[in-house]
Amino acid sequence: MTVVIVIDERADQDQLDRVIDLAASAGSDLRVHNRAVLSASGDRDAVAAALAAEPAVLSVTRIPAPHVLASSEAKLGALSTVALGECHIGPAGFTVIAGPCSVESGEQLLEIAAAVRDAGCHALRGGAFKPRSSPYAFQGLGREGLELLAEARAMTGLPVVTEILDVRDIEDVADSADMLQVGARNMQNFTLLRELGRLRRPVLLKRGLSATVEETLLAAEYVLEGGNEQLVLCERGIRTFENSYRFTLDVGAVAVLKERTHLPVIVDPSHAAGTTSLVIPLALAAAAAGADGVIVESHHDPATAMCDGKQALPVTRLPELMSRLSLATGAAGRTMHPSVAGRRKVRMLRGEPVGAFPVAAARFVEN
Amino acid sequence: MTVVIVIDERADQDQLDRVIDLAASAGSDLRVHNRAVLSASGDRDAVAAALAAEPAVLSVTRIPAPHVLASSEAKLGALSTVALGECHIGPAGFTVIAGPCSVESGEQLLEIAAAVRDAGCHALRGGAFKPRSSPYAFQGLGREGLELLAEARAMTGLPVVTEILDVRDIEDVADSADMLQVGARNMQNFTLLRELGRLRRPVLLKRGLSATVEETLLAAEYVLEGGNEQLVLCERGIRTFENSYRFTLDVGAVAVLKERTHLPVIVDPSHAAGTTSLVIPLALAAAAAGADGVIVESHHDPATAMCDGKQALPVTRLPELMSRLSLATGAAGRTMHPSVAGRRKVRMLRGEPVGAFPVAAARFVEN
Amino acid sequence: MTVVIVIDERADQDQLDRVIDLAASAGSDLRVHNRAVLSASGDRDAVAAALAAEPAVLSVTRIPAPHVLASSEAKLGALSTVALGECHIGPAGFTVIAGPCSVESGEQLLEIAAAVRDAGCHALRGGAFKPRSSPYAFQGLGREGLELLAEARAMTGLPVVTEILDVRDIEDVADSADMLQVGARNMQNFTLLRELGRLRRPVLLKRGLSATVEETLLAAEYVLEGGNEQLVLCERGIRTFENSYRFTLDVGAVAVLKERTHLPVIVDPSHAAGTTSLVIPLALAAAAAGADGVIVESHHDPATAMCDGKQALPVTRLPELMSRLSLATGAAGRTMHPSVAGRRKVRMLRGEPVGAFPVAAARFVEN
Amino acid sequence: MTVVIVIDERADQDQLDRVIDLAASAGSDLRVHNRAVLSASGDRDAVAAALAAEPAVLSVTRIPAPHVLASSEAKLGALSTVALGECHIGPAGFTVIAGPCSVESGEQLLEIAAAVRDAGCHALRGGAFKPRSSPYAFQGLGREGLELLAEARAMTGLPVVTEILDVRDIEDVADSADMLQVGARNMQNFTLLRELGRLRRPVLLKRGLSATVEETLLAAEYVLEGGNEQLVLCERGIRTFENSYRFTLDVGAVAVLKERTHLPVIVDPSHAAGTTSLVIPLALAAAAAGADGVIVESHHDPATAMCDGKQALPVTRLPELMSRLSLATGAAGRTMHPSVAGRRKVRMLRGEPVGAFPVAAARFVEN
Repeated sequence: MTVVIVIDERADQDQLDRVIDLAASAGSDLRVHNRAVLSASGDRDAVAAALAAEPAVLSVTRIPAPHVLASSEAKLGALSTVALGECHIGPAGFTVIAGPCSVESGEQLLEIAAAVRDAGCHALRGGAFKPRSSPYAFQGLGREGLELLAEARAMTGLPVVTEILDVRDIEDVADSADMLQVGARNMQNFTLLRELGRLRRPVLLKRGLSATVEETLLAAEYVLEGGNEQLVLCERGIRTFENSYRFTLDVGAVAVLKERTHLPVIVDPSHAAGTTSLVIPLALAAAAAGADGVIVESHHDPATAMCDGKQALPVTRLPELMSRLSLATGAAGRTMHPSVAGRRKVRMLRGEPVGAFPVAAARFVEN
Repeated sequence: MTVVIVIDERADQDQLDRVIDLAASAGSDLRVHNRAVLSASGDRDAVAAALAAEPAVLSVTRIPAPHVLASSEAKLGALSTVALGECHIGPAGFTVIAGPCSVESGEQLLEIAAAVRDAGCHALRGGAFKPRSSPYAFQGLGREGLELLAEARAMTGLPVVTEILDVRDIEDVADSADMLQVGARNMQNFTLLRELGRLRRPVLLKRGLSATVEETLLAAEYVLEGGNEQLVLCERGIRTFENSYRFTLDVGAVAVLKERTHLPVIVDPSHAAGTTSLVIPLALAAAAAGADGVIVESHHDPATAMCDGKQALPVTRLPELMSRLSLATGAAGRTMHPSVAGRRKVRMLRGEPVGAFPVAAARFVEN
Repeated sequence: MTVVIVIDERADQDQLDRVIDLAASAGSDLRVHNRAVLSASGDRDAVAAALAAEPAVLSVTRIPAPHVLASSEAKLGALSTVALGECHIGPAGFTVIAGPCSVESGEQLLEIAAAVRDAGCHALRGGAFKPRSSPYAFQGLGREGLELLAEARAMTGLPVVTEILDVRDIEDVADSADMLQVGARNMQNFTLLRELGRLRRPVLLKRGLSATVEETLLAAEYVLEGGNEQLVLCERGIRTFENSYRFTLDVGAVAVLKERTHLPVIVDPSHAAGTTSLVIPLALAAAAAGADGVIVESHHDPATAMCDGKQALPVTRLPELMSRLSLATGAAGRTMHPSVAGRRKVRMLRGEPVGAFPVAAARFVEN
Repeated sequence: MTVVIVIDERADQDQLDRVIDLAASAGSDLRVHNRAVLSASGDRDAVAAALAAEPAVLSVTRIPAPHVLASSEAKLGALSTVALGECHIGPAGFTVIAGPCSVESGEQLLEIAAAVRDAGCHALRGGAFKPRSSPYAFQGLGREGLELLAEARAMTGLPVVTEILDVRDIEDVADSADMLQVGARNMQNFTLLRELGRLRRPVLLKRGLSATVEETLLAAEYVLEGGNEQLVLCERGIRTFENSYRFTLDVGAVAVLKERTHLPVIVDPSHAAGTTSLVIPLALAAAAAGADGVIVESHHDPATAMCDGKQALPVTRLPELMSRLSLATGAAGRTMHPSVAGRRKVRMLRGEPVGAFPVAAARFVEN
């Protein structure tokens, strides 16, 4: 059992030092994660007793595994919010990220991006570097894909999420994307996680296809321990014996994660579905179970998609997805984030600057 | 591949005989399931060509496994409705069945039953015969439990669902219950399924804890083939590597089943959850994914429950469950069934007879 | 935790009563399984201390789940032997049971049975009642199959193992077979297990396709608690995500079971393999991991088998199986049982009666 | 379906070009993997017909997934051998690799290494870079560990296997180790696989904990496609619902892999076992099922091991492992490789040079 000790951030160094000394003698393996969070191994009650007279100590709790910084206990039950452009993934609103499995061309990406924005979705996804089971499958456009994503962001105002595969690409990807996605197959690529912990850019960490909830939180801990607190988890289906769809969407894990961690949790219904007709039901299930958002593969012409077309939601169905999601999120006591256009309208009404986005949009429509 | 041939029920015997002859020569293993449904092995297009001139033939389709009678194709895409007392599980409304894991005493059962009815749930569950992993665990009250269920039904007006374990108990259970439940561990107890096929009483068939969707439909086929069409399927979580809850609720299977079968599909969130806090999120996920109902373990005093108390939803939370479910079902384009009380009120307004139920309820309240 | 108390069988009633009283006050839920084995819930050390002065108490140990009678602790580490005709499944020798998936005809069965005997295998398997996923698949010859099995037993001298599906068939099956097999899909058919516990005939209990080792031992406990100690367990592959064979043979479970139970453990490599070429490697793996025997589907003409022909080992390969198994059992510190013919030879050399078997064999050869 | 075309390596460029042209017109997606192996998508029979008159074409076969270079078909059924120092993993003999989970100190490593060599094992394993679920667990000695491994190799004559985690460490690891291991969690770290494909140093690729056999072969294809043919696969247990051991050792996958690939396949029984008592039974099962070797965690003092001590085989049990393995390999029609000492003796008898190893060994013994 790991004991988590949360300290008032306003405590001075003397107070902090005294807490550290007392905790170190009451427990073992004391670790100072940051100014607000310590942890130790040992008996929670003994540690709590040793710290009883310390006013700077806000809480002493016990967690089942050493995912200290990811635990709800480390934030005293408060929920974190992670920026994705102007949208904030977290308790304030439900976030919908949509876009193609992989960036195929500028035309393809812009057509999809415009539809994503027009449907009121909040961010654009698209793979430039694609991890593929076979070395002979399409591996993505690489750096060219990154440039197209940056261009789509400029033209639509949508923030961009894309996958990072190689530690040596981190800077390039961080230059083009608002959020770096770690795919399921890399969830325990600790080398990559550690480097992303050093970055100051939001990260989306997908659960491995047979990773337990605990292992997912420990993978998150690698990023948090490096000091990068802008982290979102993503459930995307686990591998089971069932083969009537691609992966088993684990809504139970979503509900458990919402209890155990302060980090936002979103869901990828597309990879779990493996087929278009299941995408919306799974997205709705995720929202009703309490997820903070979904990331959906969508394409303007699934039949010609270079990758995963079978599971792509046609962009023409995005409005249906959005309106049904707004009902499902209600069941979970949540509301949808306003759309990019909605935010602009509010700003215009307030007389605030709104940027070049309408022009870009117009230019796109002209194409 | 199995080819399903649907025939107009108004066809006369000559027409039927001709279709049978033609189908038998175009395919192999011809089987006459009933006057409306035939099946054969072979090439769908060849069979369709052979039957092209037969006006009585309504459709010739292909299904991946021989669950002919369970298939959506056998009903031309129409959805079945299964009676549960006055409530009808199926497309007309979302059904909530609630009650204790096992019947423990008359007092316990009636207290819970009244709360179930008052919350607006539609039916009462409760185990009289309990299948338990260990021979030393509480095995249920048996026949005494059946009598208590019948009494609770009489007093509350709620129809009753209870589990059947032994073919030799079928008559007794059918006398006391409105719907007989086959538990997950008996999903492939073909002896039991066959006997239930001969019964004319609704059956609730739970998916085995590692049964595929196909196997579930084939188990259903055993009941349907016997002539019992009053059958409801139930997803209750599958066994996977994850251990942060009890079983992995498979919302994907719900969505797939709704595509492949005309049978109603409900969900048991309680056994999947294994812990109270997850029950409502999982129930909401099921409703949003398109389930036709849920069956929830609920208890007035979970701490003292003789079985599965850890996962029982306190009856005081049933109203919250009902109101949130009505939002989640909206996302799936559904509405909730009216409550028993609601039905009575409608009848009274119409001047129809409403039975002894208010008295019974009153008597209960006096206790 | 369950505490197991083993008592010297020679203890008199007074001694036993005193032990019962003392154990009941030191632990809770005291249970007298039989004259030699008690169990209680509670702290092992407290119970042991209470019984320290009782000479009739041979051991007080702790087991992780309440499979008291199945536990190694209940037999003080000794291993059980279960009779299968003249062969004894257990530590004295490795047992090979072979035969067709299902009895198809007298000719088929006798041809296979003769080959099984001639290869030196120890018993004949064959299904008369077949549990099939689909109601439309061949369900076995039923009672006619039982008669054919009895005939094959008479003609070859091989004891017979066959499956029991329905509690109402137990007497008939017990009349024709030396060992009644409970299939994987019925492992938690507690009604059936309880009835078999009342029988005095050997039972072969197959592990469910997603049953844990603990659940398997608890299912065994149902039979043992009824007083039937002639019980053999069988690992036959579990359901996982892998699909390059039929089920995942769990040799780890074999090794764990050999540590946790005194019951013999055999392995069915055929259902795990799903394809002929994998059967021998899996059988060898089972033997090397410490199994007490294997049960193998074998057919004289797999291409025409009415069921599971794809995984049937041609009878012509049985000699190879036997000779390679004798090497693999050596790695586990075991030897093979002598063949039926070998036993007869030993008896003839000793001047003991050998029965009508050679005549029967001759008659068969004449056919 | 992928069609594999194997060409005589002695074919001249004209012949090769003609085969390429013909194959490209008969199939699609033609790919020239190397001078001996082409592949195409399409109908095998059509491609074979197009190439029927080409004498340089040795075979045209069909495989279920695009793991062309890893397939048995690409080598016409011949089995590959991969050098590990003087030992050769492959059909000529069974290979045993043993050593600690992680290198902890020079003293620890040398004591274990000497015992590994003295027991007749063929190679030393030991982790310098350790992938750990938690960022707070011991992560290995890093470069210092590599130096200790090189020293142990020099002193014992044993070749060394160690894990590589980070593409940026490849050169360093390749300098110290004879074989680079890719761990299960990195099996689909395609960045790493691709870099190892460019290396000319043997690689040991562990199956991911929920990777299918097909995905494992496709991961291998990444390395082979880069031109590195020195590749060994390793089954190490998969993740299932069973929790009475750590992972489910998949002996069925070993048997399937031996049919589908020419690459050697070894087994890690230690991670599957998770506990010492199961290691030898699982190793024996692997050998009997046809594995080409085992890699076993072994320690001189498991109780103090910094990592995975619970599953470490005490070095004092290595002789038992070796002698029982030699029986189990016999069942699979195999023999054990000679030990390092055995090889030296043969060389000395032949008057060949044997190097400084005895001195080193002596020095070690003096410590």
